[in-house]
Amino acid sequence: MRGIDKSESPVLAVDLGGTKVVTAIVSRKGQVMAREYYPTLADEGPGSVINRIHAAIDRLLWANGVNVSELHSISVACAGAIDMSQGLVTSSPNLPGWCAIPFRDIMREKYGVNTYLINDAKAAALGECSFGAGRGVNNLVYLTVSTGIGGGIIIDGKLYFGSSGSAGEVGHMTIDVNGPKCNCGNIGCWETLASGTAVAREARRRISGGERSSLTETVEGRIEDITAEKVGAAAQLGDSLALDIIGKAATYLGVGMVNLVNIFNPDMIIVGGGMAKVGDLLLNPAKQIVRGRAFLVSAQAVRIVLAQLGDYAGVLGAAVFALQQPLRKDVR
Amino acid sequence: MRGIDKSESPVLAVDLGGTKVVTAIVSRKGQVMAREYYPTLADEGPGSVINRIHAAIDRLLWANGVNVSELHSISVACAGAIDMSQGLVTSSPNLPGWCAIPFRDIMREKYGVNTYLINDAKAAALGECSFGAGRGVNNLVYLTVSTGIGGGIIIDGKLYFGSSGSAGEVGHMTIDVNGPKCNCGNIGCWETLASGTAVAREARRRISGGERSSLTETVEGRIEDITAEKVGAAAQLGDSLALDIIGKAATYLGVGMVNLVNIFNPDMIIVGGGMAKVGDLLLNPAKQIVRGRAFLVSAQAVRIVLAQLGDYAGVLGAAVFALQQPLRKDVR
Repeated sequence: MRGIDKSESPVLAVDLGGTKVVTAIVSRKGQVMAREYYPTLADEGPGSVINRIHAAIDRLLWANGVNVSELHSISVACAGAIDMSQGLVTSSPNLPGWCAIPFRDIMREKYGVNTYLINDAKAAALGECSFGAGRGVNNLVYLTVSTGIGGGIIIDGKLYFGSSGSAGEVGHMTIDVNGPKCNCGNIGCWETLASGTAVAREARRRISGGERSSLTETVEGRIEDITAEKVGAAAQLGDSLALDIIGKAATYLGVGMVNLVNIFNPDMIIVGGGMAKVGDLLLNPAKQIVRGRAFLVSAQAVRIVLAQLGDYAGVLGAAVFALQQPLRKDVR
Repeated sequence: MRGIDKSESPVLAVDLGGTKVVTAIVSRKGQVMAREYYPTLADEGPGSVINRIHAAIDRLLWANGVNVSELHSISVACAGAIDMSQGLVTSSPNLPGWCAIPFRDIMREKYGVNTYLINDAKAAALGECSFGAGRGVNNLVYLTVSTGIGGGIIIDGKLYFGSSGSAGEVGHMTIDVNGPKCNCGNIGCWETLASGTAVAREARRRISGGERSSLTETVEGRIEDITAEKVGAAAQLGDSLALDIIGKAATYLGVGMVNLVNIFNPDMIIVGGGMAKVGDLLLNPAKQIVRGRAFLVSAQAVRIVLAQLGDYAGVLGAAVFALQQPLRKDVR
């Protein structure tokens, strides 16, 4: 049993992202009692990814002496658009081939326990609100700034789903009506200008165009290996091109935040995701834009902070989501 | 008494806009039992406007045989930013000189009854949600498209105020990051591109630049007399310049709606305000943009409709707001 109190029926939580999968056993008090990481290898397609997740779950349960029947439920946070009522992954820009995959029921049939499915940014919002930066905060917007920009909206302490479960796609608001077309079909979306993908693209473009940067050495001349993380690290070490690119992304980040501040007048905006690792270099210019452009009373009310739970936000949030649902009696 | 049942303590509601003031006696069931219109004459400043409102209230009560002590309360919807906790009009682009005016307490001291103060777009949202296009709808965004673009957000059937009462400023989201500076201090705000002011400005600019339109005759050559209403009327009569201008405004309207649809996944967007009179000529192109650019599941879920209550939305909403508040016992 190795330290896991099964009498309290923990949740087995999975966070399925475009790059990695996190599996965890989470207590009802929000303690991560065990966790493991796997590569997603998303290019292999849904069948292969799902098999890998099954193997990961089996291993985690076995390694911790937990029988599946002792679980409260299995809850999956997944990158992509989720149909909440049907339990489908309807589409996912970062999980090729995931179109109308009945992931919730696939899990339920395999394990015979209650299973839940939620968008990963919404799960992370719930995690941060329950155990992280947003504890005790009534109205907040959680942002995950990484490959794209995802969002989770907390209103009166509760996750807001909207009419059909797809609220919170804040990364897909137009902030540049004359801007580039986004993968989602919209124009000049926030995430085309302020995401990690935008940062990496801009660095590759400018270095290919002949601008000098320490990044060229970091990737040993393989410009295509430049990632947002590497640009962020170079900026923190003072590389002037990287600083300029991060500065511009931070400005765009601020522009979108002004929109959210004027619309929601939130108590807090929490910034998570890979780009959050850049820290104050990204957050401070964005905060300045908010102070300078948002409605005064709303700008004064909002705290803009970094997420606190890192990789745990998704699994913790998935667990919270499962524990908030009424239990279905028709399984097993 | 002329038909007003005073035993049910009606609300005296006021809708103070930049152009006109509506006063009304509203029953607890949401019937407008009496109403009158006055010009705001906003340029005369707050003191003069407030005196005029007092006179209007006195007249309406007298004409309907209602004593102020028989009222449930007096509730004012006001164009501008409202500090809900203090009952202040903090600022108002369309009411010159209204800076930190303690309007709620001014009314309370004058009449000795409970008084309430709410932003006019929020009041209209509440009105439409209670008695108009949004009856029975859980999640909706109400837009008033006129001089500016105001908004009211209904979540789970309740008006959403945010952390300090100023949520819903949807007209002040940047949709053109390289766009013109807005009066609010932000850049490329939705209302700089899609409001009635934007429509009138564009018509004046293009006609001054030599383009031909029936509008020139309508205003007898006084280009400065062109209003959004006149542009809308000319478009409905087939004037090609007016049609082009309304078409572009409708596209911008759609762009902002896509943002709201992706963020809120609402059941409904209700369009009110002066520009709503243009009707399908404005709404249809905007709907097409939403269908083409918003997330599929959210685009399918949302109904985009015209407001139903016209000038009554504000006073009805102000009355609903008052009736929802716990009564203060310290007055009289």
